[in-house]
Amino acid sequence: MLDVRDLIRAKRDRRAHRPDDLRALIAAYARREVPDYQMSAWLMAAYLNGLDPAETDALTAALLHSGRIFDWSDLDRPSADKHSTGGVGDKVSLILAPLVAACGVLVPMVSGRGLGHTGGTLDKLESIPGFSTQLSPEALRAQLDTVGVVMVGQGPDLAPADGLLYALRDVTSTVEFEPFIVSSIVSKKVAEGAQAVAYDVKCGSGAFMKTREAALHLARRLVDTTRALGREAAALVTDMSQPLGVAVGNALEVGESIEVLLGRGPADVRELTLDLAAIMLERSGAESDPAAARRRAEHALASGAAWQRFLAMVEAQGGDRASVERPERLPRAPIRAPARADRAGRVSAVDTFALGELVVALGGGRRAKEDAVDPRVGLMVRVRLGDAVQAGDTLAEVHLAADDPGVAARAAACFTIGEADVAAPALIIDRVG
Amino acid sequence: MLDVRDLIRAKRDRRAHRPDDLRALIAAYARREVPDYQMSAWLMAAYLNGLDPAETDALTAALLHSGRIFDWSDLDRPSADKHSTGGVGDKVSLILAPLVAACGVLVPMVSGRGLGHTGGTLDKLESIPGFSTQLSPEALRAQLDTVGVVMVGQGPDLAPADGLLYALRDVTSTVEFEPFIVSSIVSKKVAEGAQAVAYDVKCGSGAFMKTREAALHLARRLVDTTRALGREAAALVTDMSQPLGVAVGNALEVGESIEVLLGRGPADVRELTLDLAAIMLERSGAESDPAAARRRAEHALASGAAWQRFLAMVEAQGGDRASVERPERLPRAPIRAPARADRAGRVSAVDTFALGELVVALGGGRRAKEDAVDPRVGLMVRVRLGDAVQAGDTLAEVHLAADDPGVAARAAACFTIGEADVAAPALIIDRVG
Repeated sequence: MLDVRDLIRAKRDRRAHRPDDLRALIAAYARREVPDYQMSAWLMAAYLNGLDPAETDALTAALLHSGRIFDWSDLDRPSADKHSTGGVGDKVSLILAPLVAACGVLVPMVSGRGLGHTGGTLDKLESIPGFSTQLSPEALRAQLDTVGVVMVGQGPDLAPADGLLYALRDVTSTVEFEPFIVSSIVSKKVAEGAQAVAYDVKCGSGAFMKTREAALHLARRLVDTTRALGREAAALVTDMSQPLGVAVGNALEVGESIEVLLGRGPADVRELTLDLAAIMLERSGAESDPAAARRRAEHALASGAAWQRFLAMVEAQGGDRASVERPERLPRAPIRAPARADRAGRVSAVDTFALGELVVALGGGRRAKEDAVDPRVGLMVRVRLGDAVQAGDTLAEVHLAADDPGVAARAAACFTIGEADVAAPALIIDRVG
Repeated sequence: MLDVRDLIRAKRDRRAHRPDDLRALIAAYARREVPDYQMSAWLMAAYLNGLDPAETDALTAALLHSGRIFDWSDLDRPSADKHSTGGVGDKVSLILAPLVAACGVLVPMVSGRGLGHTGGTLDKLESIPGFSTQLSPEALRAQLDTVGVVMVGQGPDLAPADGLLYALRDVTSTVEFEPFIVSSIVSKKVAEGAQAVAYDVKCGSGAFMKTREAALHLARRLVDTTRALGREAAALVTDMSQPLGVAVGNALEVGESIEVLLGRGPADVRELTLDLAAIMLERSGAESDPAAARRRAEHALASGAAWQRFLAMVEAQGGDRASVERPERLPRAPIRAPARADRAGRVSAVDTFALGELVVALGGGRRAKEDAVDPRVGLMVRVRLGDAVQAGDTLAEVHLAADDPGVAARAAACFTIGEADVAAPALIIDRVG
């Protein structure tokens, strides 16, 4: 008989849990036999006294086993997925998923919505008219078999204990704790059934992880815990000291993703996508050599195969093909306001978090889960760190739903123009696994 | 607007709370506006990261102000009360309260029931047939005015937030934390309206505090927090390495209390009672000199005034006067089993906790709040630490409701008989305030 008080006391007194104890705790919590008030005392004890890697792995397995675990092995192809810890302008998934599928690897991608300053893949996809991100398990399987890629939201039966626990962490100030972050991410990724996972851990002013050390530690723990659960994994730590690419905002990012799929678009978005694709191809076993994996990904992009796969996915999920073939038909904001440099110099810093928050303030993101999102609004960022600018140069264009006289100045204030030369930051900071 | 997440985060991050924040938190919790799951996360954060004396004082004040605060100033006499942290055989309250009342000091004593290995004053009183420990506030005031002493249970309107919080601490393994213990005890004592409080902090094998250091620290904090709330206080740290007196068990302890009130009974019970009475008389202002206070208490005992006051209280609260005037009419267990020494030597240790647990096992105490208590059962402890015994000597008599062949051996096993001389421990270990 589980006495939750004993488990709380053990963690309170800095003793490690056995895997069986964590499994029993989470299973009982998922059955609502453990009340929230005991779970939250345990959450705080764990937050303050720590969970070691073995405990984190066991917690992850317990969350995983609270729900359905997809299995695509009967489709008889390698499978892979990607997870990003969230940034500003990160539209990589929209390009990456069809690209990897075009290389013959199944991509059963489950994504989330934006919350706070970071965008969400589901919100971006839903700016394509008609695109549905809610599929039944049967429809999901059928599309994965025929199209090779599906991009959906999390159903209620995937790691449901994680959903309960996340809601409790949110109201008890126990969100920002690496073992909880790892177990939440990995349990859902493993539940999706992909055999390999590429993690993109963002680092910098627009990311949750502000330091390279914290990002690298998280990247290692994500990879190790995924492997502990029997899946392959690797991770990149990537720069988020400025937005990724040019476009920030849901429809604007879909437009930029289409550009990249057509062989154009910003170099950073393309490079990061190809690097992550190579990891997915290699870790899933589709390619044994990293260089060959990278070449295969480049070919899928250059040949138009990735683009064709994107179109097939949009059609399969009910999206309007004409809107992506002619992106000027995507939702567009009626007003554009240029944010201009007030002096000459070099772009020496970008407050990427504030840019993300500005898009939320425009209506393009959420402060609370139930908020509606305006797909049209956002920013086109016209300068990169290290760029030389003259007074009056456009730093970014703000796309607005309604006129707002102060918005251009607020956007411009996110860019620091200095005297000294500034080196452009490296996009890929570290590789793990 | 109170955001509880901010308070949880502050304590999680080791920041001190302002008094206003704690007042707002407890007030909102008492109104059930703060859910248990947030309160329990805060409880664990406080448990692990600490509350300083100023925070503890503020928490105590907040608990106090969650309910009614009695005020006896219109009765125009000094008032005092006593609180013991709980031990085995501690029947001091039954003698002390009428004794101090006999000296002209009001004693509005609110007590608890036994839980675990320690007994409770209410259970002892209720072994007197007819004795009621639940009085209306009006009846309480009337009896205090006429008899000068009342011994009752805690009504629902005294520090109700403490009752809610204690229940939550019990299920979240956050009970054993000094600031919570201090705030719980002091808020209730101050709410009773006494102008002075004597604390008896037990220390040793039968007490919650096992070390002198821990007991002394708690004693100081109880005194300081009581004074911070505007009342006078002092504390004794007293020995609980063996039971207090001879009798352990509800009716047996009433019998021993009557012996002491009649000028007989064990010396340790009498001495501790007189010491605590002197503190109450001096701290309440009834006597300015400690030696005079002690003499006045001794006189009240020797003159029979304390005994007469006890009889008046029993009658006022509906108790059967004949049962206390002729204690052989108190409930008595049908069976007595002597626990004998299996060898000659000196009594070198007493497992007082185990003796208390044995009485619970006999039915004389509670494992859970809703358990019924058999007033008849218990122990008469016939040896003291340091006593020389011969093989076959009686260490204790077990009073049982039904025959139990193993019980005498279990009782005997609580006594360690050694070779060496052992000094009898001092009864009063420290004095504070």
